[in-house]
Amino acid sequence: MTAAAAQTDKKPMSKSKAEILDAAAEVFTKLGADTASIDDVARHLGSTKGRIYHHFPSKGVLLAEVCLRAADFVHEEVGPAVDPAETPEANLRKMITLHIPEILRTLPYHKVIIQSYVGMNQKSTTSLERELFKQIRTERRAYEDIFRGILQAGMQDGSFRDQNLSIALQSILLLINAPVFWYRPREDEPASFIPDLANQLSDMAVAALR
Amino acid sequence: MTAAAAQTDKKPMSKSKAEILDAAAEVFTKLGADTASIDDVARHLGSTKGRIYHHFPSKGVLLAEVCLRAADFVHEEVGPAVDPAETPEANLRKMITLHIPEILRTLPYHKVIIQSYVGMNQKSTTSLERELFKQIRTERRAYEDIFRGILQAGMQDGSFRDQNLSIALQSILLLINAPVFWYRPREDEPASFIPDLANQLSDMAVAALR
Repeated sequence: MTAAAAQTDKKPMSKSKAEILDAAAEVFTKLGADTASIDDVARHLGSTKGRIYHHFPSKGVLLAEVCLRAADFVHEEVGPAVDPAETPEANLRKMITLHIPEILRTLPYHKVIIQSYVGMNQKSTTSLERELFKQIRTERRAYEDIFRGILQAGMQDGSFRDQNLSIALQSILLLINAPVFWYRPREDEPASFIPDLANQLSDMAVAALR
Repeated sequence: MTAAAAQTDKKPMSKSKAEILDAAAEVFTKLGADTASIDDVARHLGSTKGRIYHHFPSKGVLLAEVCLRAADFVHEEVGPAVDPAETPEANLRKMITLHIPEILRTLPYHKVIIQSYVGMNQKSTTSLERELFKQIRTERRAYEDIFRGILQAGMQDGSFRDQNLSIALQSILLLINAPVFWYRPREDEPASFIPDLANQLSDMAVAALR
């Protein structure tokens, strides 16, 4: 996390701001981002609306910052793991093995991201909101590009089958984000569940590309 | 369509009702199901709210019927194609080859379904809405079970790798629904685009399972 934070050259987030984003991610996931209000987030936090407005001038900004943080979480975890000296397959496996536990650790953030896929967050009105959503698209694109680079490298060296790159990329990204749709944390979950899941999805992704 | 309709033993839908559902799917996709109103759907149709209320007593029911029809579209298209005399791989290829064009033909319906994955449609209040959402879950489950059966058969006869069935199933379902997230119809799309896409996703799915 320290290395990743240094690498992306961002100032660390205050604990108070992070707490608000955590609460917002949960509330947006539960009620839907369109329905949920700053009031709902304050209630979930047991805090005042003022505390939220101190950091986030509007619900649109709060939502955008949740989406941005969702993209940052996986990017900061997975990005530094890519090793140009490794094979595309080894890199892809390592990336997926880091991606899966990270999306499950920060699950509500990624559920909010799914809502945004269907175009519901494109109603930003203020210039700050528009700027943030531009940042989110840039950040997502940067994360996707790491995978695109690995897929491309694999197709070039023949370890992956030659196929439509964009379709392959989008399919692999959906495959490794599939748990966001179905995963429910369980008290009696064996400690091996998440590593096993990451292995299975790595195997499926590599096989789908070979 | 006739065979499928007969098989599922449903009375055909009136043209007026189908038109309203088409409009609702588009409006819910564009504005978000939580934000969109019956007024928005009426405006899109160039019709009165009365016409909509004649068929659907509430927005919740309209939303539920959109989701139910989304599940029916693919089920009626893909279900009858399964041939017990065929190998699991041949069946899976045939199913995906039918599934892909069907989700793209009825794209807004499936975008609404994505919204419902994140738990936003669970706020049904009337007993009719609750009953409809129960039907949707049953219908989706029935569709998933066709794929589950094929995956199970393949693992049993050794043509598919032995792995966690639920995870494999959910992953394959996400993989073949991935185009709902990224596909945009284009004027200059070659006629081969959708068949090629279906082939590529069939190849990826079969490879991921073998």
